[in-house]
Amino acid sequence: MTQNIYDNPDFHAGYSQLERSVHGLEGAAEWPVLRALLPPLINARIVDLGCGFGWFARWARSQGAASVLGLDVSEKMLERAASMTNDAAITYRRADLESLELPPAAFDLAFSSLAFHYIRQLDRLWHTVHQALVPDGWFVFSVEHPIHTAPSRQEWRGFWPLDRYMQEGERRNEWLGAEVAKQHRTTATYLNLLIDTGFTIRRVIDWSPSEAQIAARPEWDEFRHRPMFLLIAAQR
Amino acid sequence: MTQNIYDNPDFHAGYSQLERSVHGLEGAAEWPVLRALLPPLINARIVDLGCGFGWFARWARSQGAASVLGLDVSEKMLERAASMTNDAAITYRRADLESLELPPAAFDLAFSSLAFHYIRQLDRLWHTVHQALVPDGWFVFSVEHPIHTAPSRQEWRGFWPLDRYMQEGERRNEWLGAEVAKQHRTTATYLNLLIDTGFTIRRVIDWSPSEAQIAARPEWDEFRHRPMFLLIAAQR
Repeated sequence: MTQNIYDNPDFHAGYSQLERSVHGLEGAAEWPVLRALLPPLINARIVDLGCGFGWFARWARSQGAASVLGLDVSEKMLERAASMTNDAAITYRRADLESLELPPAAFDLAFSSLAFHYIRQLDRLWHTVHQALVPDGWFVFSVEHPIHTAPSRQEWRGFWPLDRYMQEGERRNEWLGAEVAKQHRTTATYLNLLIDTGFTIRRVIDWSPSEAQIAARPEWDEFRHRPMFLLIAAQR
Repeated sequence: MTQNIYDNPDFHAGYSQLERSVHGLEGAAEWPVLRALLPPLINARIVDLGCGFGWFARWARSQGAASVLGLDVSEKMLERAASMTNDAAITYRRADLESLELPPAAFDLAFSSLAFHYIRQLDRLWHTVHQALVPDGWFVFSVEHPIHTAPSRQEWRGFWPLDRYMQEGERRNEWLGAEVAKQHRTTATYLNLLIDTGFTIRRVIDWSPSEAQIAARPEWDEFRHRPMFLLIAAQR
């Protein structure tokens, strides 16, 4: 079973206060760049892996998507997603991404925001995603950047004290008052796993906030130096 | 004109003492992994961008390559390459990779070892390489890893003090008694430049020495943590 930190009451309360939880996609600083990686959504059948509060599902429908299947392990997040949604073409379903099954060739786009760094058996999940896409279907996602997840001490000191980059596996760090386990993989491992699964890589972004975003949040100055997220677009 | 540090007499003397200069491919720790990225070389027509002393050219011929064109900006290296070569199917030619021209569809493989981080106009060069390959031709190369080239201070302190990763451009560092200018690019920039040039990415390696190699050279312990080179295989 995937770690389900999002149903921990204290963590959930903290997470619900994040800008991206309150303001949705517009509160996620990486959203403009991630959105630019998406194919046209008109009539697209979409699966959202780790859909959270359903912000992406509702936005995708506003862009003409035919349907969105939103999957998440967190009951609390799915409840809130359902409470904010009034659209028969959006389905939310509780699912453990570690053991997910999806029908073959059923989707034009698989999307995922900041979920895959929790997954231990990513090869299994990505094979499931691959067969669930139509030929030429798109796979667009973000993860915490490997340079971010790697170190023993995630603390900016005028530089990022990078160690353990080459040592893949679990990282436990405190976040919003809870201990959260994430899986560290190198950028190359993500890319080769996509290639081995049968995907063609279309775009890779070492994402950091823009100058304007940093100007608005001076505590982000360190992201002038180090990337925050890794964004990838691939195609079946 | 490409920086030609290799013809600086003091630098050349130092470079000539490196294990990879004395022992050739077998003295290059990354060679076994780089070699594994190569297609079969039987009857292949090969261009080697930054051929140095010609170690790869001679090895490729021993593997059945039909011909190798070795290009380098350094006269001293080409002289020594010629002095070690007795093979009419190997041609060494002085060339500035910043302004290189190559005939169309003339090669089955373009190879380059640790040269592209010196190149300022990589987009121009890679377009030249792309049109010089036959359809499905291979492009296999290594560069210093972006995590290595990025920082202001390249000094292991129990961690790698990473800064300026997101700030691409020139880096000047001392190496073998000379000041050497290298171009820092992120991994994503290398990959997207390949994609935009028309290549399909087949393999990406964040390369560090193996445990056995580190055991033989304890001063390499830091490479258990951070990658030394980025190796990429792509296909036209």
